[in-house]
Amino acid sequence: MTKAKPQTDTVRPLPASSVETWDFEADVVVVGYGIAGVCAAIEAARAGASVLILERTGGWGGAAALAGGFIYLGGGTALQKSLGFDDTVENMTTFLTAALGPGVDTAKIADYCAGSVEHFDWLVDCGVPFKESFWGEPGWEPPHDEGLMYSGGENSAPFLDLAKPAPRGHIPQLADKKIGQRSGGYMLMKPLADTVASLPIDVEYDTRLRRLIVEDDRVIGVLATHFGTPVAVRAKRGVVLATGSFAYDTAMVERYTPKLSGRPGAAIEEHDGIGIRVAQALGAELAHMDASEVAIFGDPQMMARGILVNGRGQRYIPEDTYPGRIGQATLLDNDNQAFLVIDETSLEEALATESATPFFRFPPKWVAESVAELEAEMGLPEQTLQTTIATYNRHAASGSDPVLGKKAEWVRPISTPLACFDLRGFTAGFTLGGLATDLDSRVLHVTGEPIPGLFAAGRATSGLCAGGYVSGASLGDGSFYGRRAGRAAAANNAV
Amino acid sequence: MTKAKPQTDTVRPLPASSVETWDFEADVVVVGYGIAGVCAAIEAARAGASVLILERTGGWGGAAALAGGFIYLGGGTALQKSLGFDDTVENMTTFLTAALGPGVDTAKIADYCAGSVEHFDWLVDCGVPFKESFWGEPGWEPPHDEGLMYSGGENSAPFLDLAKPAPRGHIPQLADKKIGQRSGGYMLMKPLADTVASLPIDVEYDTRLRRLIVEDDRVIGVLATHFGTPVAVRAKRGVVLATGSFAYDTAMVERYTPKLSGRPGAAIEEHDGIGIRVAQALGAELAHMDASEVAIFGDPQMMARGILVNGRGQRYIPEDTYPGRIGQATLLDNDNQAFLVIDETSLEEALATESATPFFRFPPKWVAESVAELEAEMGLPEQTLQTTIATYNRHAASGSDPVLGKKAEWVRPISTPLACFDLRGFTAGFTLGGLATDLDSRVLHVTGEPIPGLFAAGRATSGLCAGGYVSGASLGDGSFYGRRAGRAAAANNAV
Repeated sequence: MTKAKPQTDTVRPLPASSVETWDFEADVVVVGYGIAGVCAAIEAARAGASVLILERTGGWGGAAALAGGFIYLGGGTALQKSLGFDDTVENMTTFLTAALGPGVDTAKIADYCAGSVEHFDWLVDCGVPFKESFWGEPGWEPPHDEGLMYSGGENSAPFLDLAKPAPRGHIPQLADKKIGQRSGGYMLMKPLADTVASLPIDVEYDTRLRRLIVEDDRVIGVLATHFGTPVAVRAKRGVVLATGSFAYDTAMVERYTPKLSGRPGAAIEEHDGIGIRVAQALGAELAHMDASEVAIFGDPQMMARGILVNGRGQRYIPEDTYPGRIGQATLLDNDNQAFLVIDETSLEEALATESATPFFRFPPKWVAESVAELEAEMGLPEQTLQTTIATYNRHAASGSDPVLGKKAEWVRPISTPLACFDLRGFTAGFTLGGLATDLDSRVLHVTGEPIPGLFAAGRATSGLCAGGYVSGASLGDGSFYGRRAGRAAAANNAV
Repeated sequence: MTKAKPQTDTVRPLPASSVETWDFEADVVVVGYGIAGVCAAIEAARAGASVLILERTGGWGGAAALAGGFIYLGGGTALQKSLGFDDTVENMTTFLTAALGPGVDTAKIADYCAGSVEHFDWLVDCGVPFKESFWGEPGWEPPHDEGLMYSGGENSAPFLDLAKPAPRGHIPQLADKKIGQRSGGYMLMKPLADTVASLPIDVEYDTRLRRLIVEDDRVIGVLATHFGTPVAVRAKRGVVLATGSFAYDTAMVERYTPKLSGRPGAAIEEHDGIGIRVAQALGAELAHMDASEVAIFGDPQMMARGILVNGRGQRYIPEDTYPGRIGQATLLDNDNQAFLVIDETSLEEALATESATPFFRFPPKWVAESVAELEAEMGLPEQTLQTTIATYNRHAASGSDPVLGKKAEWVRPISTPLACFDLRGFTAGFTLGGLATDLDSRVLHVTGEPIPGLFAAGRATSGLCAGGYVSGASLGDGSFYGRRAGRAAAANNAV
């Protein structure tokens, strides 16, 4: 393939002059067959380009196929309308700007919200099924195959009064949902992979990105290893990086998101940041490298009915909000210290709901007949938890939570006996930072100019999220800007 | 100078082939005449290299000359010893690893601590004066010309019991200290600039870095503008970037440290990240781009004697710690909401101390005869501030603070009448992230290999601080790794 056997253990760009023959060739080469890659491939092929997907593993799916399947969409999608929810682009924009910041790319948020209805229709047109059913209970995911759910704290403090709430977590339907089996994410990926199969798109599995191939500062291909052997892949119009996050690269996590160190979650081991690094070697700009999605392994039904306190026995977050916000507040701002205090009545009520997974159903660490007893057992200083609960109960008696704004429906005085779940260290997550891209998914150089021939989408890029998170943002911006990447690469006829 | 007039409005590297004649030439070219630059220049010259410093403004000093002057040093410096403080490299390493993390570069911390005593002697040898006098009161800086002070919370919770505390904030002596006049930082820079003047070192002022000049991936010079005109500067052995932080580049702050947006502090307008960007364009690796020093404009004498509460009326930090930790906890973890509550007796005591600056002496926003009254005036929910103070007082009665570990000497029950200072939004700071460098201050490529001919130190690099901060870390690692950069560049005879 190349004149001399090229190094594959460096991310430095390989000059095209080193390549003698090309092993593969296509107009658009998509690296990674997860959500961003599949959408890029479909749109590039539909635009008339020949497309080759390179996938490192032996099958399609990426992290997306293992995900819960949320796609964050709104502004009045067909599903929102059919379920009776009013939503506007403006409400969605206002909410996302607040919830995903500070420091969001306002042009990207506006663009994404404006295109959201069309994007939902596109997914449906590709065969992604959404059941016309809404799940309104607290939870990480709906317990069955409901198609719509709140997934970002839109209807909780502090956003409740900022923008008219609407559920925007759209979930592909998976009948017969069972724990440990296929997920909503699979039901998103499957029809999209089927769509790929119906189009003139080639796929090479077991093909791993190593380096970008460049000619005069323009990306014209990639050097990969195909079953371990170096191969040169020519991209006549463009390369799309859809290689995922860096959650599993220990060095990058230590360097950029050290609070996530040792706790990668909702990512796959292939998420080693390779797409980010090969582009950095070309001078690519980065953004929000510290931003992190953080899950907490607590049952939202229990959390909403109880109170969460930090290591000082203080409440710190409205417990009825999106649990990903609870995860972020716990890990990032409260030293990964969280305790869930709940009384027997509320615990029984939560356990009787159908929405929680067995995963969250472990016994409390402490049970006590009084708050004073619990406080002592937990080793908290006297009158810390007691005053927290007394103040909470004082206002709960009138159905309010002026301290944190938990909604009245979840506010009730904490009685005795009561229990406490020790959630210290119960967080995990993935990285949200990456390559800076424009609205056409062109990878930006540190000068601010696009790097010719290079496109990216998904968690290899900094997408909608600057700091905050909502479930569905990753499959959302990955699919949305994956499509853009495919279209822009296909239209890139400059070579 | 160059064959065609080169663009100066891009950070892309300029190929050496574009340069016809060199306007300036030296073995080592140091960009920036602040603390890192001055130390690099001295060591490079002493190693026998010809040295040229390029400084964008009209004079030496950089941010350093305006700084308080703290240099964080320990492990048993001559000053520590003469003032009777025991310190060890191990204690210093343990403390800094905890206080500056998570995610510190452990090799860099170990290296810095091991070299700290020698570095102090080197500064003294260059003529930097340190008065043998210790200031032990809470404060941002000593009120007079004392030479040593705690500057990182070493003797406060949670570090007090982690490593034997020692004061490590070394401050150059400035007799006749007056507010608004010269600072300890000036007294650090002045003798170093005098040392430069005594060595064969050239300085060109009003000379602004635009691009790096490269030949075969090696940095061999810089393109600058000299009084607005492009000039090509040849660096026969190496270029040292000592250009400071990116605190004043709005776009970079939005992209990497959005919580600091609109609140740059303790930096200068020249801190626009140019050194970081020209190296990024060569594929340089970055680290800890979100890390931020954060000052809070509160009087440490008052804070230690009172309590700080967040927007929910909860305490969140031991008030007797290093005020920079208070700043970080306030801005980064508590939504920039801080209120200082102090009773009349303690306030009068604090006002009678000599350590605080008039800057901090503004009137309280609220005064009240009772905690209940203050709570209501502040608009806090009932029984939030009241329970916080009741719990604090309960333990303070026996001289303890089991909630946050404030030291007994500062713990006393809060009586009435009392006052509250509104410190919301009273934070500002500078960025700590930047280029990844090795122990020889070589700028690392994203491959992990050094970029040939390129060195960096100071706040253009990620130094000791991954997330936390101590006063003196910036002048400390800037001077320490500035020296390393100068020596390594001088020894770089490969051209």
